[in-house]
Amino acid sequence: MNYSYKMHLMYDGTHYSGWQIQPHALSIQQLVQNAVRTLTREEANVIGSGRTDAGVHALEQVAHFRVVEKVHLEAFQRSINGILPKDIRLAKIEEVAPDFHAQRSALAKEYHYHLSFGPFVSPFERSYVWHVAWKLDLDLLRQAAAFFVGTHDFSSFTNSAHHGACAKNPVRTVTKVDVVEKPNSLILEFKANGFLYKMVRNLVGTIVEVASGKRTLDELHHIMAAKDRRLAGHSAPAQGLFLVKVYYKDGV
Amino acid sequence: MNYSYKMHLMYDGTHYSGWQIQPHALSIQQLVQNAVRTLTREEANVIGSGRTDAGVHALEQVAHFRVVEKVHLEAFQRSINGILPKDIRLAKIEEVAPDFHAQRSALAKEYHYHLSFGPFVSPFERSYVWHVAWKLDLDLLRQAAAFFVGTHDFSSFTNSAHHGACAKNPVRTVTKVDVVEKPNSLILEFKANGFLYKMVRNLVGTIVEVASGKRTLDELHHIMAAKDRRLAGHSAPAQGLFLVKVYYKDGV
Repeated sequence: MNYSYKMHLMYDGTHYSGWQIQPHALSIQQLVQNAVRTLTREEANVIGSGRTDAGVHALEQVAHFRVVEKVHLEAFQRSINGILPKDIRLAKIEEVAPDFHAQRSALAKEYHYHLSFGPFVSPFERSYVWHVAWKLDLDLLRQAAAFFVGTHDFSSFTNSAHHGACAKNPVRTVTKVDVVEKPNSLILEFKANGFLYKMVRNLVGTIVEVASGKRTLDELHHIMAAKDRRLAGHSAPAQGLFLVKVYYKDGV
Repeated sequence: MNYSYKMHLMYDGTHYSGWQIQPHALSIQQLVQNAVRTLTREEANVIGSGRTDAGVHALEQVAHFRVVEKVHLEAFQRSINGILPKDIRLAKIEEVAPDFHAQRSALAKEYHYHLSFGPFVSPFERSYVWHVAWKLDLDLLRQAAAFFVGTHDFSSFTNSAHHGACAKNPVRTVTKVDVVEKPNSLILEFKANGFLYKMVRNLVGTIVEVASGKRTLDELHHIMAAKDRRLAGHSAPAQGLFLVKVYYKDGV
């Protein structure tokens, strides 16, 4: 292969079974790969930075493909956005070094989780937030969020089902869990060198349980140490979760 | 009837045939009225401030209904939002004087129209903007917008089909057409004492034709004076349009 391309993709995950290609399900990776093959007339594989689950959104998912023939970037972007459904967009495409790999070259990722308070959710937010209609203690929420910053074994916060390969090393370094307050809503911003399967949603579910008074801050130490998924909180719903950025060396 | 209630409704109009009840079509008014009748167990009619077309959204549509039995406001809001689909929400309900009428008491209305520029539309905006992919002259756009402020006969900017009653007096007073620029997008904000059928979309279509160089500013005088719908620009697509506020005396 002569040319490697890096794509920035945006998608509304509501109507898909997730990023990853799987039989008998409509995946974003499949639709993007089909479109890339149609345009390049080559059997290119589209490799993403990692999976996102059914219903999870992306402001910036990164994927690469390699082809023999050079691609005209501007025409390619226009054409693929003509082929793809409107809930998936190619925001940017650039040529990269042949050793660039969307998953293996990734240094860090950032996910945001959107909570909505108040008596009702706006129709325009209905697929993009978790509606928490009960009262949260925001001081406890902030303390629970801060607890997860650092290098930890996150075994208690991953669902291992059919993801053996990823779970080999359950240690991750979380570099931020910021709490951004807005009127009647709140965003939890996570950045780490990598995330285990369902890790963000399990962290959010547990943080919200602490902020709801269902668990204490002290329990978090115990849950983390136990390395047992059954001890942590429920998964927060997929629809509040956005992949917002994948970090690479030198910004590439 | 003993009690009158004013409702503030929000909706995503994408999946509806519009506000107004009509046979063989799914309208927002019908769904709200069904829900009100279910909760009050009375044959109340829900009357809106005016129609919105298929695909048009509302940040604030106002409607009223009258009943014999008093309504518990908080419980009513919670219950009706449990019955209504998630793309229609009751944002607020309050008791009003018995002579309040959502349409006849309205003093003014405000509509916003969202334009999106750039090579592609975000998946999260896809149902809420008109994608104008070509170059607009924003100075011309601002001048065309300003032209419509004032009291005019807007016959050239209304589609009269099956709206005989509304078209009796085609004179309206437009008190603002503001142009709010954002990165890669723009909002046209209209306020008037009333709008004729499809008037906002016809004004937006014409303003964009001027900003595209397809029509001159001078032509606008001629089009307005001619009182002939065929002379004005195309209707802008419904999906960019939001009813954002209905004004009443004393803010009621």
